[in-house]
Amino acid sequence: MTDVTEQLLKDTQEHVDEEKRRVEKMGNRPWQPWIDAEWGFRNHWYPALISRDMPEGSHKAVQLLGEDILVTRQNGSVRAIEDRCPHRGIRFSSRPLFYTKETITCWYHTWTFDLDDGSLRTILSSPDSKVIGKCGVKTYPLVETKGVIFIFVGDIDPPPLEYDLAPGFLDEDAVVYCSDPYDIASNWRLGCENGYDPGHQFIHNWSEMCINAGMHTSYGYTSSKKEVLDTTRYTEEECGPKGFTRKVEKTTFNHTAEIPLKDGSVQQLMLPLARGKSDEELSALTDIIRLGTVGLWMPCSLKVTTFPVPHCTHYEFYVPKNNKEHTYFQFGVIHTQDSEEAERWLGEDGRVMWEVPAVKGFTVDDAFARAEMQKFYESEDGWLRERLFQPDVELTMWRKFASKHARGIQTEDHVKGYFSR
Amino acid sequence: MTDVTEQLLKDTQEHVDEEKRRVEKMGNRPWQPWIDAEWGFRNHWYPALISRDMPEGSHKAVQLLGEDILVTRQNGSVRAIEDRCPHRGIRFSSRPLFYTKETITCWYHTWTFDLDDGSLRTILSSPDSKVIGKCGVKTYPLVETKGVIFIFVGDIDPPPLEYDLAPGFLDEDAVVYCSDPYDIASNWRLGCENGYDPGHQFIHNWSEMCINAGMHTSYGYTSSKKEVLDTTRYTEEECGPKGFTRKVEKTTFNHTAEIPLKDGSVQQLMLPLARGKSDEELSALTDIIRLGTVGLWMPCSLKVTTFPVPHCTHYEFYVPKNNKEHTYFQFGVIHTQDSEEAERWLGEDGRVMWEVPAVKGFTVDDAFARAEMQKFYESEDGWLRERLFQPDVELTMWRKFASKHARGIQTEDHVKGYFSR
Amino acid sequence: MTDVTEQLLKDTQEHVDEEKRRVEKMGNRPWQPWIDAEWGFRNHWYPALISRDMPEGSHKAVQLLGEDILVTRQNGSVRAIEDRCPHRGIRFSSRPLFYTKETITCWYHTWTFDLDDGSLRTILSSPDSKVIGKCGVKTYPLVETKGVIFIFVGDIDPPPLEYDLAPGFLDEDAVVYCSDPYDIASNWRLGCENGYDPGHQFIHNWSEMCINAGMHTSYGYTSSKKEVLDTTRYTEEECGPKGFTRKVEKTTFNHTAEIPLKDGSVQQLMLPLARGKSDEELSALTDIIRLGTVGLWMPCSLKVTTFPVPHCTHYEFYVPKNNKEHTYFQFGVIHTQDSEEAERWLGEDGRVMWEVPAVKGFTVDDAFARAEMQKFYESEDGWLRERLFQPDVELTMWRKFASKHARGIQTEDHVKGYFSR
Ligand code: FES
Ligand code: FES
Ligand code: FES
Ligand SMILES: [Fe+2]
Ligand SMILES: [Fe+2]
Ligand SMILES: [Fe+2]
Repeated sequence: MTDVTEQLLKDTQEHVDEEKRRVEKMGNRPWQPWIDAEWGFRNHWYPALISRDMPEGSHKAVQLLGEDILVTRQNGSVRAIEDRCPHRGIRFSSRPLFYTKETITCWYHTWTFDLDDGSLRTILSSPDSKVIGKCGVKTYPLVETKGVIFIFVGDIDPPPLEYDLAPGFLDEDAVVYCSDPYDIASNWRLGCENGYDPGHQFIHNWSEMCINAGMHTSYGYTSSKKEVLDTTRYTEEECGPKGFTRKVEKTTFNHTAEIPLKDGSVQQLMLPLARGKSDEELSALTDIIRLGTVGLWMPCSLKVTTFPVPHCTHYEFYVPKNNKEHTYFQFGVIHTQDSEEAERWLGEDGRVMWEVPAVKGFTVDDAFARAEMQKFYESEDGWLRERLFQPDVELTMWRKFASKHARGIQTEDHVKGYFSR
Repeated sequence: MTDVTEQLLKDTQEHVDEEKRRVEKMGNRPWQPWIDAEWGFRNHWYPALISRDMPEGSHKAVQLLGEDILVTRQNGSVRAIEDRCPHRGIRFSSRPLFYTKETITCWYHTWTFDLDDGSLRTILSSPDSKVIGKCGVKTYPLVETKGVIFIFVGDIDPPPLEYDLAPGFLDEDAVVYCSDPYDIASNWRLGCENGYDPGHQFIHNWSEMCINAGMHTSYGYTSSKKEVLDTTRYTEEECGPKGFTRKVEKTTFNHTAEIPLKDGSVQQLMLPLARGKSDEELSALTDIIRLGTVGLWMPCSLKVTTFPVPHCTHYEFYVPKNNKEHTYFQFGVIHTQDSEEAERWLGEDGRVMWEVPAVKGFTVDDAFARAEMQKFYESEDGWLRERLFQPDVELTMWRKFASKHARGIQTEDHVKGYFSR
Repeated sequence: MTDVTEQLLKDTQEHVDEEKRRVEKMGNRPWQPWIDAEWGFRNHWYPALISRDMPEGSHKAVQLLGEDILVTRQNGSVRAIEDRCPHRGIRFSSRPLFYTKETITCWYHTWTFDLDDGSLRTILSSPDSKVIGKCGVKTYPLVETKGVIFIFVGDIDPPPLEYDLAPGFLDEDAVVYCSDPYDIASNWRLGCENGYDPGHQFIHNWSEMCINAGMHTSYGYTSSKKEVLDTTRYTEEECGPKGFTRKVEKTTFNHTAEIPLKDGSVQQLMLPLARGKSDEELSALTDIIRLGTVGLWMPCSLKVTTFPVPHCTHYEFYVPKNNKEHTYFQFGVIHTQDSEEAERWLGEDGRVMWEVPAVKGFTVDDAFARAEMQKFYESEDGWLRERLFQPDVELTMWRKFASKHARGIQTEDHVKGYFSR
């Protein structure tokens, strides 16, 4: 290289180095545990399966926080055990053998485990082996309720399930319509952040539900600092769920915007579905949103009230499957003591009033947005290089909140089984 | 995080660290060379191709221990050379040019190599180049016999082929029926271990051969320590094959088993095909197995006598293709001086008496089992984390034996060509 | 292992280590910048798109030197900006929003950027945000000419486009026929080297153009050292394109060759299409090649005159897409003042006289050859382990020349955006 080009190269390198130093210095963010929690928060409850997908005698292999788990229903009750034989690592789930309702037998060398505590109860070919009783697989605490199977991933005595659920879900009169969960190629944290993010509302201008309803949504919700403080309520009693909630009433929905042009003029913009409508008509269309609240709850869920219809509450979970995917669980909940109304909700009503509009017509756009963020956050040091702006304070509030209330952080060592899962 | 959760995290981490230290301490196992031999044992003979797949003038690219090799038959004789031009790395096999029976010419810049010693004999475009005679590719010692092409991968003067083959295969009166080799997504060592593993017999309850024969197989073969010692014979004369053999006669085949239940009762189990048969009938069905022997032989093969019919010996090889796959070679062998019987064996008889039952109906289940073990051994430190039990002593005998008799260990450096292959 | 095998292992390892030391010592080659330039040369112009693929209002995502770039045409003029929102990394191109001709709006949170300088002009939902004006994306200098969109990737003030183009391309009377670019799974440097490499001509014996023309090509072009010096002309004035050119007139085309055999005899070879032709006929067929010149030009292009017909000049570019792929751009150029001839060239004539023979019938074989070299250069330390011979001096001349004239080297840090692209 010529002297000139060498100098150029050197100069460039200096800038690169400087930038890297700048970023590294910022490395220890106030929400560092959130940045570290690539594989999820350990010692929490997560939805794992829908009850209707687990009839008597069935089994399913699932992955939670990178851990392979086998779930089965025997004699009516559901159990979850590590899907990995301690002997030589075989996955039980590839040929599961339930010779009794109490046990699972490994299809390779007949080690037979207790479904309740995971202990090695016997070996069919070697009933006198000394290893019997001294060995086992991890079993996972499990609660089945409201048509959902929840699993606790961790090492500690599990706190009550309700500590890890947004309020209302477990109410006696809550009637829960479960949609089919699906996997998204995006880290679970991007799920939490997208769901609550007030600015992301703009993407719902592409949502079928809004378009079909003639609803103009917005260019993004905005709130002043004062409004955020006024309308956000923290829930962090020691014995109970942890989360926070924004009342939407004070949020501003912008349906107009403008772009200043070089010639000094301004390009006025208006959302297509807002055009030609009076202010009253526009308010009427968004009033239902104003009634509602949106909340984030530990470890990874969102609760939206009065959505998509006034009497329905929407719950969704971004369950860490591994470090690159999450499983998206969504539930439409009403509260009623009327058993006929409950039955109707679990049938046609839930489908028509919640599942089709909310799941098929609205949150699919969120799923798209989360997957689109993955490259930057996964391969381009996004957690360190993002450039946040004022409205993102509602996200950093969550990051700090979650960092504070997390009961632990899942690591790759846990995934590999270094700590017996 | 709160103080409580920080304490929890710290405690968990300590357990993880402790477990890692425990495993690392055990790192240096008595069979460490076996653990290191991910890419195979260097300086050994391996079956590479079946003769019938190599007619005059043909060529095939194969991979052995991660090395790319081109095999061709010219003037009747088969040669094997490094499939990588020293000039700029081109694979000859993507457009092989045999302008003479003695040479191969690289299709990129016409470097022309001697098929016998690999030396650069000429360059078509530059016959006066100084590099001619000073450069070459590796050639691989090769023996073609019994319809099989064996290749020696290593650096030393190859010992006789028979040192790396189970006895009998090369006998003058051995008639060898070769099935089509295929690749399995599993490390080669899992092949060796699965094949000999007495406990693995349980998986053959899923084998078509057993089911169609009404044979009840077992919950796994078992032997006392005394029986193992009594029936295992080592072969390790300096000049000859290295291996060991178990006579099956003293092995116990369990066709019943039981699982103790929580209420103190016991669930009795019996293999479906054993039900309703008298002891005599059951013995009759397994007597043929008792006649036999099973042996493991350096570097990576299994020999089973009287299988699947009394006069047939089954040989199989788990040839390291690379560190994640092996190529499965299987041979059905009879001994006869009668040329008509030999001919029948190589035609219909071998197919009906050996290939269909043994290859299509039995060892496919072994192939499945090996691939199922791969995740644990490859990604979850299985070689350090497995939890062996008493019957596995027959495997650790092999691990130590192989560690002792291996002539070398293949490394990734060899694969990349750092030592001219 | 026995003592013997341990000794063997040790000896082998010593050879491996020795070879590695040898290679490492050679690590710092005279053309080290070339070896380091896996991702391309920074601070240069590259063809990025063909104008006809970019009608008014359209947009395309391209990758250059690993950088994701969005190109759009607005109000007739083409702009190129970083395809990555500084806010949270979203790719604009997955849902590009051009609400004005001057701007692009991110579909996630409405950050709106100036297409000219990349600055954040406004945020639709937060027009008062403090981040406006303090943030932006990289914009790429761009020149559209001769039906091609060229983009400058780097940090410095871009020198004139003509400094990075082989002479003639931008001439006023140059008429440029553009074929469709395509991606090749090969590092861009292998493109440069293959294109100029005199020995590679042998591969064109497989080219349809040669076979259909009855042209016998050669076993590889050869030249003595004196002929190389005599016929190579360097162009390296500070203000202008950098490159060098070989006149083909003194090149020898070998259409016969021989292979010495072990028995002392010699196998004579002659290219099939040369057989039965007189010397005059053979000369006539290759005379057109002798008229021509072949040149390599910074940063990554080849210029061939009188190819495939006397009045046509062939230009091609191996544009680094990322470190494992390049995009292959090819152009057939004539010089004429006659507007009717120009029009004919851009229509039928260019297709029949240049595109079908050269692009479809000839350079596809180069594309094949480059992809075939990739494994060795990418995974087997090819840049250090290749074994060059005398004719390759024409390649090392280029490697040194390019190392000298490169304005910078692209690094993975640039790709990740550590230096704002
Ligand atoms: S791997 Fe499960 S019993 Fe052996
Ligand atoms: S790569 Fe084989 S001769 Fe050049
Ligand atoms: S990611 Fe582009 S505006 Fe937020
Ligand atoms: Fe949303
Ligand atoms: Fe088997
Ligand atoms: Fe070429």
